[in-house]
Amino acid sequence: MVDLLIRNANVLQLADESATILTDHEIAVSGNRISAIQPTGALDPSHAGAVIDAGGQLAMPGFINTHAHTAMALWRGLAEDVNLASWFNDYIWQFESNLEPDDVYWGMQLGLLEMIEAGITAVNDQYWHMDHVARAVEKAGTRALLGQAMFGSNGTAQIDETAAFVRRWDGGADGRIRAILAPHAPYTCDDEFLGASALMAERIGTGIHIHVAETREQTQASLAKRGQTPIEVLADCGIFNVPTVLAHAVGATPGDLEMLAEVAQPVGIAHCPKTYAKLAMGYPNLVETRAMGIAVGLGTDGPVSNNTLDLWEAMRLTALGQKQLTGDAENLSIGQALRMATAESARVYGQPDELGALAPGKLADIILVDLSGTHHLPLNSITASLVYNARAGDVRTVICDGAVIMQDRAHKTLDKGEIMDNILPRMDRLRRRENAGNIQRYNP
Amino acid sequence: MVDLLIRNANVLQLADESATILTDHEIAVSGNRISAIQPTGALDPSHAGAVIDAGGQLAMPGFINTHAHTAMALWRGLAEDVNLASWFNDYIWQFESNLEPDDVYWGMQLGLLEMIEAGITAVNDQYWHMDHVARAVEKAGTRALLGQAMFGSNGTAQIDETAAFVRRWDGGADGRIRAILAPHAPYTCDDEFLGASALMAERIGTGIHIHVAETREQTQASLAKRGQTPIEVLADCGIFNVPTVLAHAVGATPGDLEMLAEVAQPVGIAHCPKTYAKLAMGYPNLVETRAMGIAVGLGTDGPVSNNTLDLWEAMRLTALGQKQLTGDAENLSIGQALRMATAESARVYGQPDELGALAPGKLADIILVDLSGTHHLPLNSITASLVYNARAGDVRTVICDGAVIMQDRAHKTLDKGEIMDNILPRMDRLRRRENAGNIQRYNP
Repeated sequence: MVDLLIRNANVLQLADESATILTDHEIAVSGNRISAIQPTGALDPSHAGAVIDAGGQLAMPGFINTHAHTAMALWRGLAEDVNLASWFNDYIWQFESNLEPDDVYWGMQLGLLEMIEAGITAVNDQYWHMDHVARAVEKAGTRALLGQAMFGSNGTAQIDETAAFVRRWDGGADGRIRAILAPHAPYTCDDEFLGASALMAERIGTGIHIHVAETREQTQASLAKRGQTPIEVLADCGIFNVPTVLAHAVGATPGDLEMLAEVAQPVGIAHCPKTYAKLAMGYPNLVETRAMGIAVGLGTDGPVSNNTLDLWEAMRLTALGQKQLTGDAENLSIGQALRMATAESARVYGQPDELGALAPGKLADIILVDLSGTHHLPLNSITASLVYNARAGDVRTVICDGAVIMQDRAHKTLDKGEIMDNILPRMDRLRRRENAGNIQRYNP
Repeated sequence: MVDLLIRNANVLQLADESATILTDHEIAVSGNRISAIQPTGALDPSHAGAVIDAGGQLAMPGFINTHAHTAMALWRGLAEDVNLASWFNDYIWQFESNLEPDDVYWGMQLGLLEMIEAGITAVNDQYWHMDHVARAVEKAGTRALLGQAMFGSNGTAQIDETAAFVRRWDGGADGRIRAILAPHAPYTCDDEFLGASALMAERIGTGIHIHVAETREQTQASLAKRGQTPIEVLADCGIFNVPTVLAHAVGATPGDLEMLAEVAQPVGIAHCPKTYAKLAMGYPNLVETRAMGIAVGLGTDGPVSNNTLDLWEAMRLTALGQKQLTGDAENLSIGQALRMATAESARVYGQPDELGALAPGKLADIILVDLSGTHHLPLNSITASLVYNARAGDVRTVICDGAVIMQDRAHKTLDKGEIMDNILPRMDRLRRRENAGNIQRYNP
């Protein structure tokens, strides 16, 4: 039985780093998976539960955001033109002193709304009050990998609590939610805490999502203090005994990367270029990293550093940034950028066989993109347009896990009016900066 | 008499580098100029020729594109992932072997359509067949500064021809068009040609628009060949005896910049960061350049290198790029980015007193921007949202020279269907790359 039939689409196919387009094809969805991709007309549409006429729009996999703190959308635009230490100490950790669980529920919905509008169907999110985040994801109909952030200073009881969160939510929302442990970073969790987190992850059969080597300065500080890079610290604490998502790794050394390339468990890096530029954190050389076979996916980080939750922007900044960094415009080609945004992000996210491509058997996370806007014309190259011209506003329809969650820009799961009605009354409190010092102090 | 009254707008005001917003104001337009900005209701709307209800949208000056080859939109997406020399030799100058005057007329209209949709009301354009460009601008209702590109190899007769173009079009389209001389670059025009161009510009009372020091390699090549930087070459040829727009100047040396800061005639630099990154040309340090008082405006360059004609993107990439380049996130602040996009671009464009700000007496080039999209919410900071969140699609209404040329996304002057009907039949020919070598060979 075909539950959903998407007709008259041009379907993006990526094999390795070369893209092809299947012109005027239809995608059949049965349950939450793609059952067939074939020329439009192969199936009688009266045999399908629901039919969407793509009208020549491009079908491609939903974007996977490999690193975010989505609910921070609440503070968008309130920590501007400051460097990383001030960003943490004078803004974020002061704002978060005021954070209440329901703030996260509504902030998460707001961020999910924005991500759906941008064609993002899955997010790896590390934040506070994650039960509330999970409930928002459940409602939105999207996919998520969720971890409750842990600071070592808050004590090891957290590890049991977040392990309980993992047991509660892993496989939740009909399998759309997976859960993970999320010690914040080696500069906010000591070795004992990291080691205990790794052991717990191993025991309960999950992975680790952690910030590491966010800047070269953090690597240098770690080397000066203890003679090890932050990534070496993680290795010694046993983090790489489980699947790991490393947020940023801008300051990874060649030795770190050689080690990561040899790790037996899956390790992926989330690359968030807008935040790196905005906070002047530097760019890593992804040409080298990717050549070593290490998975690098795209992320937005949180909207207080990144301002938007938009992986079109992240994809474009990645390609532009690597050409600029390496001084060679042949680097990070269009095919490579598209592969990072799809199959490689699926690898970092931990579902390489099920997400990141449109093919029979894959989970049905599909977006329809309108390339008829003036900014694409004449449409000489669909793939160039995706990397260098497309905007979030070009996404018309979003399907996740076989269900239509936005159709022709109309949301089917979340209610923008309700979300803003719930957020606006909170903002007077949330905008206050409280120097309570009860979170952390950035001093890696 | 008020011809147009824009009510219920929030009006962006920029004094130096700090922005303020006049909440719920109205803008009165008489003829082609702003006659008043005051709280909504100060004027009885029945006394206005036409009324637009901005409904709380933000009113700001139309963007000024300080450097473009707009009609190259025809080849968008066809010269990808290549370095500068290949981009010129294997693509652009081969494509242009096939260029016919009417191609430029329709390609220019396409690019103007995209620019209007992005809120760009003025463009400094250097290209071929400029009478056709001027006719397209006349039709679009926008503002332009136009120069016929000249290569020294095509002979000095061009200088008289383009001077005749200046005489034909300077002040044309009811004053919306200004005209300028446009020798292509010091690496395509010899000293004698540059000197003759400068003398002609002085004689006919116009300025010069020229590419210079596009990369550090060009500066090094010039120093190696002749012991002078490209900007020193321009100085010796007398270019700075007239108002000048320098495209790029990525490879300007500290000595070049000191000299430019002292020049008596207006000199401005057009900064096109997306092209610089995409072609791996490097970034200039604008923090230093701006500190010397040199005007730097934003540009898109042509859509075969930049892919889009979008100054929101250029503004964002400028701010992100300078923070990243200098390693200091306090650099190129939101106020500075907005100033570059408005008053400083007006200075580079040569109309600092008439454009780039909304105030009584200024020309009425006004755009209305909708900041209610999810990607702006909650709207904690309008100015941060303009620099880091806004997209071309947020522009709803565009007014140029007092006339409404796009209202609520509906074009009033150009016809997209007609434009594409005229462009698509040309594309088979235009996509052909002819190695005729009859344009130039890049070898600075």
